Amino acid sequence: MKLAFLVFAATALAQPPPVRILIAYHSQTGNTEKMAQAIRKGAASVEGVEVSLRKIADVKDQEILQADGIVVGTPVYWSNVSADSKRFLERVGDVLWKAKTNGDDRTAGAFCTGGGVAMGKDVARLSILSALLTMRFIVIGGVDDAGFGTLGPEATTGPAGRGVGEKEQEEARNFGERFARMTRQIRSAKNPPAPSAR
Amino acid sequence: MKLAFLVFAATALAQPPPVRILIAYHSQTGNTEKMAQAIRKGAASVEGVEVSLRKIADVKDQEILQADGIVVGTPVYWSNVSADSKRFLERVGDVLWKAKTNGDDRTAGAFCTGGGVAMGKDVARLSILSALLTMRFIVIGGVDDAGFGTLGPEATTGPAGRGVGEKEQEEARNFGERFARMTRQIRSAKNPPAPSAR
Amino acid sequence: MKLAFLVFAATALAQPPPVRILIAYHSQTGNTEKMAQAIRKGAASVEGVEVSLRKIADVKDQEILQADGIVVGTPVYWSNVSADSKRFLERVGDVLWKAKTNGDDRTAGAFCTGGGVAMGKDVARLSILSALLTMRFIVIGGVDDAGFGTLGPEATTGPAGRGVGEKEQEEARNFGERFARMTRQIRSAKNPPAPSAR
Amino acid sequence: MKLAFLVFAATALAQPPPVRILIAYHSQTGNTEKMAQAIRKGAASVEGVEVSLRKIADVKDQEILQADGIVVGTPVYWSNVSADSKRFLERVGDVLWKAKTNGDDRTAGAFCTGGGVAMGKDVARLSILSALLTMRFIVIGGVDDAGFGTLGPEATTGPAGRGVGEKEQEEARNFGERFARMTRQIRSAKNPPAPSAR
Repeated sequence: MKLAFLVFAATALAQPPPVRILIAYHSQTGNTEKMAQAIRKGAASVEGVEVSLRKIADVKDQEILQADGIVVGTPVYWSNVSADSKRFLERVGDVLWKAKTNGDDRTAGAFCTGGGVAMGKDVARLSILSALLTMRFIVIGGVDDAGFGTLGPEATTGPAGRGVGEKEQEEARNFGERFARMTRQIRSAKNPPAPSAR
Repeated sequence: MKLAFLVFAATALAQPPPVRILIAYHSQTGNTEKMAQAIRKGAASVEGVEVSLRKIADVKDQEILQADGIVVGTPVYWSNVSADSKRFLERVGDVLWKAKTNGDDRTAGAFCTGGGVAMGKDVARLSILSALLTMRFIVIGGVDDAGFGTLGPEATTGPAGRGVGEKEQEEARNFGERFARMTRQIRSAKNPPAPSAR
Repeated sequence: MKLAFLVFAATALAQPPPVRILIAYHSQTGNTEKMAQAIRKGAASVEGVEVSLRKIADVKDQEILQADGIVVGTPVYWSNVSADSKRFLERVGDVLWKAKTNGDDRTAGAFCTGGGVAMGKDVARLSILSALLTMRFIVIGGVDDAGFGTLGPEATTGPAGRGVGEKEQEEARNFGERFARMTRQIRSAKNPPAPSAR
Repeated sequence: MKLAFLVFAATALAQPPPVRILIAYHSQTGNTEKMAQAIRKGAASVEGVEVSLRKIADVKDQEILQADGIVVGTPVYWSNVSADSKRFLERVGDVLWKAKTNGDDRTAGAFCTGGGVAMGKDVARLSILSALLTMRFIVIGGVDDAGFGTLGPEATTGPAGRGVGEKEQEEARNFGERFARMTRQIRSAKNPPAPSAR
């Protein structure tokens, strides 16, 4: 029995803790939520990654502190993040500050949905990324279907767009996968596995 | 007496209603408030202009609807406007929307104070101006002491700056005066004085 | 004959000089040019307005100096204005500076075309508007078909968009008309017509 | 001799190629160059890192392609990057595109100097970072002396600032060190060392 315990303990030590990704979003109509779910799907497909999908009001302090990567999603209200999303960003800053820590070695991403084609989507995503850069996070964007990088996934939900369609969800899934994979890379580089004792 | 009334009425008709400017600000520490007061001073120095200086929580719907020009001031929190300031911008949009009106022929301006020299001051002011452009306002900036235009007055309130000193207040006063003068110009062009009956 | 001359001179004095609008654009593929032409059409429909439509390389210093309003159009290259467009903005600044003048009482507008739906269109237009605010111009945006204000007309020219279609051109025309009308308003307020001699 | 060769080969295999960082800058007056030199100093202090410091006109295509991390510095002209800096960003995109590669697993950073305290410094750095995000780079910011993250080092070179003083250079050095260390981390995670044969 003692032996069994030792074997278990050794396995636990060998196994690094999961890479934790928090996807926090504000959604009134369900559009941003749909994007968030697609991102979660992509992120969860990466081995060794644990994803929490939360409405911003439901995020616990502990989840912010434990996250190796944070992705924030917002609807675009008047050419910027919603006030609720901004409040959440301020809370992330407060929680880290009180815990005397910061975004070092952690990753940050952004996504949004907007009624108009190009009315504040850049500003909204850059606002999220700037806020998290100011907390010392590393910023990771998405990749669109033409292979170009993006500030993060987005969808046009007004009459001029296609809403959160299959294409938008695929881009969101791809972003989730990319974000999770790179967050895992950066975490593994931070905590290199101990050389196996022999 | 009848004659006196007629004279009074004629004078009232001849006299256009005052140009109304609303300065709305969010301030925690008093810095943004100090800037707001300097702007008010400058704006109030322009003949025919009536200025309301309000904390964002105290602004009345009527004041938003009657304003010929709106100036919004914010502290910079995490490289953007504060959540409270963003909430106010959303309220301005709602109030105009419900009254089936918009920013046409009205002017908008922005100002901010930030702890860091250049950490989000552009983003904060551009966020305010973008939001108000999206409501169809005309945007007016400031002028610094070298004669360059600005996105609106700003001050650095952390250890790297001088706080809201005399120079910052002068720039704020000049902006208030410029903003009021141009708002009056635009209002007068919108409602040209009726040709004097003869 | 003398009398005829006097009558002519009096008419010339009574008639204010035309309001001059310069539309300057950079276009590689013709998309931004198509938008520029639609803006010109809208602007030229306003009485008393004279429009110059120019590729940025063809703009003469004199046209910059005489313009009551300047509209700058750019393709979006790597999430911002093209280097060529930025070079033109720097030239505008230089020309005004050397002539010891600035954007006071003049208006500025922006438009763009981009391959992606929302990849740098905000940044590109805000870059143009910020540059011209720094030269002391007054900023005027557009209005989309839902009645919302915009940072200026835009079109998505890659596979995800409709190119410069009828809808895009209509928005551009409407912007041109709005921009010209407001520029005329502001000019007339700056130079109020002299009281008719009697 | 055979043995000596084998030992050499084994050492070469064990030794990963250096992490390459390219610092490319545009500088007219020497200010941005001074910042670039401080960043180089910080980056070069990190073991296993090779730094190229280049004026943008002197950068070779090969240097762009080989770089594990690229840092771009610009003066602020009219509230944005200089046209020359934007041209360089477009060239980076072209060079990667033609080589059928992109910024995946590479890092990007920005810095700037501006005449005014807060006139376009955010926009300039966000323009650089957005462009490089669109090429799929990972974005890394700086840290100021209060421990806050930044969009990258900056200095105020006009009368309102202290120029590129000791404090500005220290922040630049710290950024260089942080950028190089994190770039090395990310590179090592991308190419994990082969398990030692036994």
